[in-house]
Amino acid sequence: MIELEKMRHTLSHVLAAAVKNIYPEAKFGIGPAIENGFYYDIDFGKTKISDADLPKIEKKMRGIIARKLEMKKHTLSKMEALNWARDNKQDYKVELIEEFPETEEIGFYDLGDIFTDLCKGPHVKNTSEIGAFKLTRVAGAYWRGDEKREMLTRIYGVAFATEEELDEYLKRQEEAKSRDHRKLGKELDLFCFSDLVGVGLPLFTPRGTELRELMANYSLSLRGREGFKKVWTPHITKTDLYKTSGHYAKFGDELFMVHSQVNGEDFAMKPMNCPHHAQIFASKPRTYREMPVRYMEATTDYRDEKTGELGGLSRVRSLTQDDSHVFCRKDQIKDEVKRLVAIVKELYETVGMKKLRARLSYRSDEDKYLGDKKLWDNAQKQIKQAAIDNGLDYFEQEGEAAFYGPKIDFMAEDAIGREHQLATIQLDFVQPERFGLEFTNEKGEKERPVMIHHATLGSIERFLSVFIEHTGGWFPFWCAPEQVRIVTVNNTVDDYVSKISEILSGIVLDKPLKYNELRFTVDDSSDSLGKKIKRATELKIPVLIIVGPKDVEEGIVSLRLRDHEEKLKLPKLATYLRGL
Amino acid sequence: MIELEKMRHTLSHVLAAAVKNIYPEAKFGIGPAIENGFYYDIDFGKTKISDADLPKIEKKMRGIIARKLEMKKHTLSKMEALNWARDNKQDYKVELIEEFPETEEIGFYDLGDIFTDLCKGPHVKNTSEIGAFKLTRVAGAYWRGDEKREMLTRIYGVAFATEEELDEYLKRQEEAKSRDHRKLGKELDLFCFSDLVGVGLPLFTPRGTELRELMANYSLSLRGREGFKKVWTPHITKTDLYKTSGHYAKFGDELFMVHSQVNGEDFAMKPMNCPHHAQIFASKPRTYREMPVRYMEATTDYRDEKTGELGGLSRVRSLTQDDSHVFCRKDQIKDEVKRLVAIVKELYETVGMKKLRARLSYRSDEDKYLGDKKLWDNAQKQIKQAAIDNGLDYFEQEGEAAFYGPKIDFMAEDAIGREHQLATIQLDFVQPERFGLEFTNEKGEKERPVMIHHATLGSIERFLSVFIEHTGGWFPFWCAPEQVRIVTVNNTVDDYVSKISEILSGIVLDKPLKYNELRFTVDDSSDSLGKKIKRATELKIPVLIIVGPKDVEEGIVSLRLRDHEEKLKLPKLATYLRGL
Repeated sequence: MIELEKMRHTLSHVLAAAVKNIYPEAKFGIGPAIENGFYYDIDFGKTKISDADLPKIEKKMRGIIARKLEMKKHTLSKMEALNWARDNKQDYKVELIEEFPETEEIGFYDLGDIFTDLCKGPHVKNTSEIGAFKLTRVAGAYWRGDEKREMLTRIYGVAFATEEELDEYLKRQEEAKSRDHRKLGKELDLFCFSDLVGVGLPLFTPRGTELRELMANYSLSLRGREGFKKVWTPHITKTDLYKTSGHYAKFGDELFMVHSQVNGEDFAMKPMNCPHHAQIFASKPRTYREMPVRYMEATTDYRDEKTGELGGLSRVRSLTQDDSHVFCRKDQIKDEVKRLVAIVKELYETVGMKKLRARLSYRSDEDKYLGDKKLWDNAQKQIKQAAIDNGLDYFEQEGEAAFYGPKIDFMAEDAIGREHQLATIQLDFVQPERFGLEFTNEKGEKERPVMIHHATLGSIERFLSVFIEHTGGWFPFWCAPEQVRIVTVNNTVDDYVSKISEILSGIVLDKPLKYNELRFTVDDSSDSLGKKIKRATELKIPVLIIVGPKDVEEGIVSLRLRDHEEKLKLPKLATYLRGL
Repeated sequence: MIELEKMRHTLSHVLAAAVKNIYPEAKFGIGPAIENGFYYDIDFGKTKISDADLPKIEKKMRGIIARKLEMKKHTLSKMEALNWARDNKQDYKVELIEEFPETEEIGFYDLGDIFTDLCKGPHVKNTSEIGAFKLTRVAGAYWRGDEKREMLTRIYGVAFATEEELDEYLKRQEEAKSRDHRKLGKELDLFCFSDLVGVGLPLFTPRGTELRELMANYSLSLRGREGFKKVWTPHITKTDLYKTSGHYAKFGDELFMVHSQVNGEDFAMKPMNCPHHAQIFASKPRTYREMPVRYMEATTDYRDEKTGELGGLSRVRSLTQDDSHVFCRKDQIKDEVKRLVAIVKELYETVGMKKLRARLSYRSDEDKYLGDKKLWDNAQKQIKQAAIDNGLDYFEQEGEAAFYGPKIDFMAEDAIGREHQLATIQLDFVQPERFGLEFTNEKGEKERPVMIHHATLGSIERFLSVFIEHTGGWFPFWCAPEQVRIVTVNNTVDDYVSKISEILSGIVLDKPLKYNELRFTVDDSSDSLGKKIKRATELKIPVLIIVGPKDVEEGIVSLRLRDHEEKLKLPKLATYLRGL
């Protein structure tokens, strides 16, 4: 355990000590260190605790820390421990201690002489080692996560080695909050939810649909360039498909089951597309000349996530994958993976997430990996070479591969320093076997292909949740749902607005996506100019063209961009916009 | 009953008489007139009847007809009728007669004096009135359609007034058979089925996907031009959506039900998209300034069709609609419908199905129609005016409207004269009410919009089933999955092929769909030229460029099209192809 975690753990004891001091009747559950901080679950009896109570608890904690108290461990027999808990009326600790084996020496930590807690440690030696912290919020939490048990009050805190790091973290949290994609999704009118349709099932409005289509089309266009062909597969299938692929045995109870009332048949909604694509590959005889065969499809998969885990676009039940599958020969793996890695790099560079790390996941010596070990070793070498050839920032992890083949997962860093796992490239030696896929080689023999799964965005919904927060809703010009809005000062400028509109109608962007027609609107309503500008700014439209009589007179256009203004001669407008 | 139907009905008696003559032990079921002909279900006992037996039966029939026998009716009491049937050992007739009321006079027809049958008629007066006919095939049919009863032999025949009409019909049938989209779908590698996925759930290969995307994109592009915006909605929903819309009460037992094993919740697969689109409309307050709001989405709906009724793409479980919904004011109906009618005309003209008839379906005075009668009358007037303004070939039918509003259905004629109902425009007064949809009008009051459902292609799958047969797989140049194939005579022409490829890569068609990049391949394999041409011709690729040393020498390209050949100077190639 690193020092930071020890310190966070000690802070949960300090928190408990402070609470005990202010609320002597409090009964304590558990108080661990967590990512970025710590918490403690506490039963305050009839006392209601809210965020408003945190400052006084925090103050008490700072007082305790200032006393430079030592953290000392001692052990008790189970009997002694139970006596301690009962004497102190700590019912939850009694319950925890009762679960220890009879003979175990049970660990306790003393915080100076002011507070003792059941704990196996470790902790910092002295509260003087504690850095910067802050209590952040109060939440409810069922004792032992069981909704049939008592509802305790969880007090959360964050802690870092230095005040600077803490400030940095809090600022980033604040920033993340203002970029929350659920909030922006509503403000920018990108997607909505309906109680009648259900949680985890977003509906995309015209603006959101524009965005998701642009991203999906861009993603697939990169693979289209490399010989991938689109296919189309239905969203349901007989479960036979997953029984054959092997998914049913592993994930059968996580499938959305579909029942036909008319015929009494049962189907499943597809949670992935590989078995469907394998069926297309298998639909006719193949020869070595066709290999590799490359299919892609942006299609919606359905996964039966727990209701409580659904939120915004981060985790949904309807996830649209920009999915693809290569069916190739064993000696084509490197080239195919290399091609895909280059695509991942290009896409994340385009969306402004240039910092990309890759984890190469290999097999270990465990038995769980299916397929020939030689094939694995050879494939792992090819993957690594593909990573090196692409100058990828990668690291290797043995034992992290899927049971069906080695893989590369990509971690992309967003504008506020958070890492997101989005793209993935996975080799698969198992499905070709299970579906009996084959092609005829040069010698006229049947040969089994390898499958390579790949999604560049991952799921479009999750990618958008990241992308919206990464950009804060200020999308790059090429993919903004509305790129330009013309706002009129008054109705004397109508002819000039027509002229501008005509120019805009002729603009078709070519990069990064071809044939991308400019999306613009005109706000010539009778509302005040201020109101019209406010409306456009709230939608984070990258370019406003504000047209007044003076612009008409001088033959210019006045542009208002996110962070500056421009005045251009009208004939320069198209070139300027194409350059954004 | 028209004369043609009488004649067909009489032919079924003649058929029975002929069979009775050749197979005296035959027992007869029923023998009605049907579209284009007639059939008779017959129990031949242990004798096996096949298509090979038809010529001799047909010959016997012609002999009977030549005798100019009269068809005369008489009636019997139920008792007499039963005696007749029992005397003649006609067990199936006994069963039929037993179901008549005791007191009914039961009709019989005598064919001259050679054959008598239970029948209520009507018939032609004399077999001399019978025109041209032909027995076509033998099939099995359960007595009374009940799979637990006897399997009878059904003999089918076709009949028309004249030999010319019969020939015409048979030729058309032959033509239809050679155009069968299931056969062509396989030959042209457009789609496939997998036993593991299930019937009615086609998977589209790269070529088929190209075709379906081009058609869907073209269809949506026409509406995009008219202000429709794409939206995206998930394929499943809580059933609450359909309970609110009213669909659940009407079609609840036809829905594919989806069950969550993780959360125990129930969902349904969407069989249509209107309620989802209504939710997007309802996701924020609307004002009169935004109206009409126009959404479109090419999305897959799931309908629980009977397994026996599924075949190829004509009827599928996964049907992708090129769907759209207008939310408009009552006085905007005409303009909106007019816009849609124009789109339907344009699309069917483009795909070569210019003969288009429209049925305007109105309400009758029955109670089943929901919504204000005045609103209906006004809307029907607007629809009619939209039809007239578009110069549509239309007819009106009272009592054919949906319960929720009047509609226009379009019938398009294909290349071999068959009519297909594909596009539809439907007004809806009910869903806006049930979902409480509203917008604020100029007076600041809440007003209810009208919804207009529209699909131009209908379902993409069904449209393709028609389009493939309509074109016989020779798709128009712009939408052929592979438009051009370069075929090499030998490998001395490689440089020249690169030059041609470069030209082809630069070609982007603009009509009828914009940004339509030319799709071409090169076959420079070592196979013989004949084999390569055969392969390309089987795929019905519209343009082959056959490149030999002479072409290189002369700087020309030799094109082979469906029905002629062309030789062009290389610099003329792009212009030529753009003009196809």
